[in-house]
Amino acid sequence: MFVNLLTNPIMADKAYFTYKVEPQSLDFTSRLKSPALIMSALNAAGADAHNKGFDYVDMEQDDNTWVLSRMAIEVSYRPRQYSDYEIETWISGYNRLLSTRNFRIYDEEGKQFAKMTSQWAMLNVKTRSAVDLTRTADVHDKYMVQEEPPCAAPCRLRGVAEGEEFRHTVRYSDIDFNRHMNTIRYVEMIFDHLPIDAIAEDRPFRLDLHFLHEAVLGEVLTIATKEEEGKLLFEISTVENPCVRAALCWL
Amino acid sequence: MFVNLLTNPIMADKAYFTYKVEPQSLDFTSRLKSPALIMSALNAAGADAHNKGFDYVDMEQDDNTWVLSRMAIEVSYRPRQYSDYEIETWISGYNRLLSTRNFRIYDEEGKQFAKMTSQWAMLNVKTRSAVDLTRTADVHDKYMVQEEPPCAAPCRLRGVAEGEEFRHTVRYSDIDFNRHMNTIRYVEMIFDHLPIDAIAEDRPFRLDLHFLHEAVLGEVLTIATKEEEGKLLFEISTVENPCVRAALCWL
Repeated sequence: MFVNLLTNPIMADKAYFTYKVEPQSLDFTSRLKSPALIMSALNAAGADAHNKGFDYVDMEQDDNTWVLSRMAIEVSYRPRQYSDYEIETWISGYNRLLSTRNFRIYDEEGKQFAKMTSQWAMLNVKTRSAVDLTRTADVHDKYMVQEEPPCAAPCRLRGVAEGEEFRHTVRYSDIDFNRHMNTIRYVEMIFDHLPIDAIAEDRPFRLDLHFLHEAVLGEVLTIATKEEEGKLLFEISTVENPCVRAALCWL
Repeated sequence: MFVNLLTNPIMADKAYFTYKVEPQSLDFTSRLKSPALIMSALNAAGADAHNKGFDYVDMEQDDNTWVLSRMAIEVSYRPRQYSDYEIETWISGYNRLLSTRNFRIYDEEGKQFAKMTSQWAMLNVKTRSAVDLTRTADVHDKYMVQEEPPCAAPCRLRGVAEGEEFRHTVRYSDIDFNRHMNTIRYVEMIFDHLPIDAIAEDRPFRLDLHFLHEAVLGEVLTIATKEEEGKLLFEISTVENPCVRAALCWL
């Protein structure tokens, strides 16, 4: 079902992007915030797709846009202020619904400190339905790299029923060019609900994320949290729909 | 009272930093968000100070840190996705309390679309008192550039009494390495309270900002807004202290 290099003998190159840990992306530990790290990875994904000619901009002409569906990231440690880090990214395969994009992230000594895998759907913004990705084979097949995802695929996540007294109204600075709540804002809401001591210690973690529904300007979000089998579970919802589910475990 | 090039014949160079409008920094107009633009300018300020050896990192050894006191920015238009922009920054003078850092910001055709001036104090984090900047003359004098600020200095701002039903609790993702609410988060709160139509039109504006008091983790902020003489006035406060005052006018 997945197209991979066995069916696709053309070898593509991975893409590399270098970022610097700038003051505005630090948390109180003087290390790069995890949401900022994820933001860099998503920016690298966008830039790679853009450079290869199948990004949002080009898709838009066709009313199609990439939508992040699921991702998992494992972070061993976070780099310090003004150090450089390099993001390596590649597509390893796709099926009718999802394209898999991977990331390895290295510090300035070349040591890997984070790895990530993500699954993207292509959405037609007019019909609001998913595009069959086998129709993108001509572009997709050209850019796949024969290397498996560096960490386990995003795990299954069920709903979290319990609530918490936290409400967030989606505002201008939360929304992206699609007028939806920006991915990173959900990630920040999750990190805002982690034990601050664990962040202070820079504990290694794995975070799984599912993006289910897009909140829009003015909607009120609540976050439910639960601890189960050593995992911290999160669900961010509008009044009507779950938007994001997440599970975080310490490694 | 201000040390300037008349008293300082040594000529320094301006510094230049190039940024790209990445997907995560777009708003719904597919243009660079103004808070993200201000963030880039502050990152450029930090990087320039770092490169010249008088940044936070070095100051910390001495228990001293730079604190942004006031700034004014004028934005003619905002660049679009994936375009590059260049930030030119220089210090034009200082007195006992404040150092003036300026910015001109150019699009990829070299056209200036924003200008900014900012005033910084140096704070001793142990005594919580301002450092006399004439004591930094040896470093400061070396790096001043003989060019006046590109726009009028930050204007006087008085308090805003009226309130609004908006509350924001300072959380992990809001705080910086100093454990204070990040400057950009205040700026975002202000943009979240602007008329969305004006943002949609990409209307030119001038924004003046005063930073009065630093909110910390767990504090609850409220924002008061008022229209007066064609200006939109804002005050963000904790229960006890005004933190930020701002005035925005359309140009």
